Formats: sequence, C-alpha cells, structure tokens
Amino acid sequence: MIKRRLGPCVTFFPQPTTLLTSVDAAGKTNLMTASWVGVVSKTPPTMAVSLHRERQTLVNIRETGCFVVNVVPASLMREADFCGLRSGRQVDKLPVTGLTLKPAAHLPVSLIDESPLNIECRLSGEVKIGDYRLLLGEIVEVHAADEAFDAAGSMQAQAIDPLVYLGGIREYWGLGARVGTAYRDGLDLAAEDKEEPPK
Amino acid sequence: MIKRRLGPCVTFFPQPTTLLTSVDAAGKTNLMTASWVGVVSKTPPTMAVSLHRERQTLVNIRETGCFVVNVVPASLMREADFCGLRSGRQVDKLPVTGLTLKPAAHLPVSLIDESPLNIECRLSGEVKIGDYRLLLGEIVEVHAADEAFDAAGSMQAQAIDPLVYLGGIREYWGLGARVGTAYRDGLDLAAEDKEEPPK
Repeated sequence: MIKRRLGPCVTFFPQPTTLLTSVDAAGKTNLMTASWVGVVSKTPPTMAVSLHRERQTLVNIRETGCFVVNVVPASLMREADFCGLRSGRQVDKLPVTGLTLKPAAHLPVSLIDESPLNIECRLSGEVKIGDYRLLLGEIVEVHAADEAFDAAGSMQAQAIDPLVYLGGIREYWGLGARVGTAYRDGLDLAAEDKEEPPK
Repeated sequence: MIKRRLGPCVTFFPQPTTLLTSVDAAGKTNLMTASWVGVVSKTPPTMAVSLHRERQTLVNIRETGCFVVNVVPASLMREADFCGLRSGRQVDKLPVTGLTLKPAAHLPVSLIDESPLNIECRLSGEVKIGDYRLLLGEIVEVHAADEAFDAAGSMQAQAIDPLVYLGGIREYWGLGARVGTAYRDGLDLAAEDKEEPPK
C-alpha cells in the first residue's frame, strides 16, 4: 500500500467522545469534553484520562479525588463540542447546554443525567507526560440507561449511540453497522489454521 | 433517565481496534490485537497502550523498546479478531492472517502493510496497574495510506474505515455517518450564550 509519512504527530485516531464531570473543593461542578479517555485495567477496573496541565478539571480532580466519565451520545454532539470550546473559568456550561446533573452513587461528584452511560472513578494515580497529566481512575460504579438493555439483559449499542471522535481530522461520527462479534469471528481463521496438512 | 447500576466493572466503551506489531531480541515479529490504545499527549506526541502482564508483546517491547500501532480497517475484522484469540507463543499469526510486514522508517520493528495507518512508537515509560502494564510510546512517525487523502490533502475517514470495538459487549462496528465538526458545531450554543441579556 502506498503511504505518506506525516512525521511525529497526533493524527487521525478513532476515540470515544466523553464529558468529564468534576467538582472543586467548594462544590462547583465543571464539565469538560475529553476524547483521550480509555480503559487500562480490569484488576482493578481502571480508566485513564489525559488532560492538559492547565485544565480546571485537573485542579478539581486533584482537590476532590474523583470524576465521572459520561459517554456522549450522537444526539448531544453540539453540547459536547461546546464544552470543548469554553473553559469553566469563563462560563458556567450547565445552563448553556441545558444538561442536568444527578448525584453519583459513591463519590461526591455528579453524573450527567442525559448521558446513557456514566462511569464513576476515584483518582488512583497521576503520570506526567510533557504538558499533559494522565489521570488513572479506579471505576467504582457504572450507570447504564435502562432502555439500552434488551430482554436478555444485553446492552444494545444503538441505544447508547456513542459519538466517535476522529482526532486529527476533528470530526464526529456515529456508529454505522455491526461488523462482527469479538472473540468469535476470528475462529474461522483458526479453523483454517488447524486444517493445514501436518508438515 | 432511568439507569441500572452495574457495579465496578469494565463495560461498554467505544474504542479503536488496532494490531500492535512488536519484535523480540531475536528479530521475530508478533501481532497482538489491542483496543486499550489511545493518544495521551501532544508534547511530545505520545500513545498509551495497556497490556496484560503475561503478553508476549510486553516481553518484546521491553526487550527492543519499540512498537507500532496499526489501525485496523473494517475489512480486516476477522484477521484482527484472530490475533486476539491466539498467542504468538502458540502460532505464527502472519501466515494464518496473510498480513504483510514492511520495515518501519525509524525503529527496528515492522508495520502491517494492509493497515491504512501505522504509528511508530518508541517506548518512553511503563506504569503498573494491577495485572496490566500501561506502556507509553513516543510517536516518531505516522504512515497514512496515500488513497486516504483528498485533493486538498485532508484525510478521509471513509478511506481509513476504522473498526470500532465496543468493549463489554464485545462487538465490532463500522463508522456510520459524519455527525459534525469538532471545535465548530458547538459555537452555535456559544452564540446563544452571548445573546443572553446582561444581568
């Protein structure tokens, strides 16, 4: 395949779109759009989020030791984008976006009610990487929209409708079609492997 | 919104699907499927990947100090899934998947030629999180498929066609439609904010 070299840069990469909720020592909530968010461990269940060192959300999380990762559905694209354009130091994002807060279950921080999936995290570590701070958060609770579950209790991706962020090209995309099932569809190739004649 | 509590767990979360290429001290390449992969810094450009401590890929990266993140297109779903089902200790995944290696530009490791986007990383840190090891890799080069660029030099998401992995429910999805443009569409709300009467 013919390729172009782009040099050492952060380019096109599919990421989730999330809104982080955090609270300062005085109890004021801030919202921040974050796509540098991911799962990094099952033992214990842990998420990592990377923030620029000047973010108000970083100040908040250090002060109170907790945050919530709120998965953004495609229907809240404009609200999420707005929260990435403005700082909590400039404007209170809640009235502008119309988003609603609900108390978290275990930590002194709030969830975004309109998000179909909220992940409560307790700060468990911080790693310095240049101008960024990678925060590790142990997952203490997951809240998922009741309407996202089918009769068998499985979560349906369409009901969550997560907004995918393509960094580098700065585009938001929705999910399209289901392409396959993990830990299963690759078995077709494993079978071919087994059918090779012994050497 | 009515929600269910799922407890402290790793659940539904949109992530990229990638194949990591690494090489051991003897020069043997291994492929590994990874979705716990993300960008964590621009200064310097850095990716983080989280691996279980028993992975051959972890042994390789520690030995040789480099790896490549190869973005998986939807067309390679079965090949990627296979690489997540088998260990490089059991089977040589290259002949089974039919994937082709090309030398990286700056590091002694290979790219997957069929991947439309390859990110060369030099190991720059390791963080222990339970049974997992979060590896930090400074990006030293990005290779992007020539056919993914339009006449203006912008990358087209459809041409990369990244496979999205939904952890927790273990499903692979393709991208659907473009929903919006980041750092722009939220300005609509910012305008409303400005039009509020002064208090």
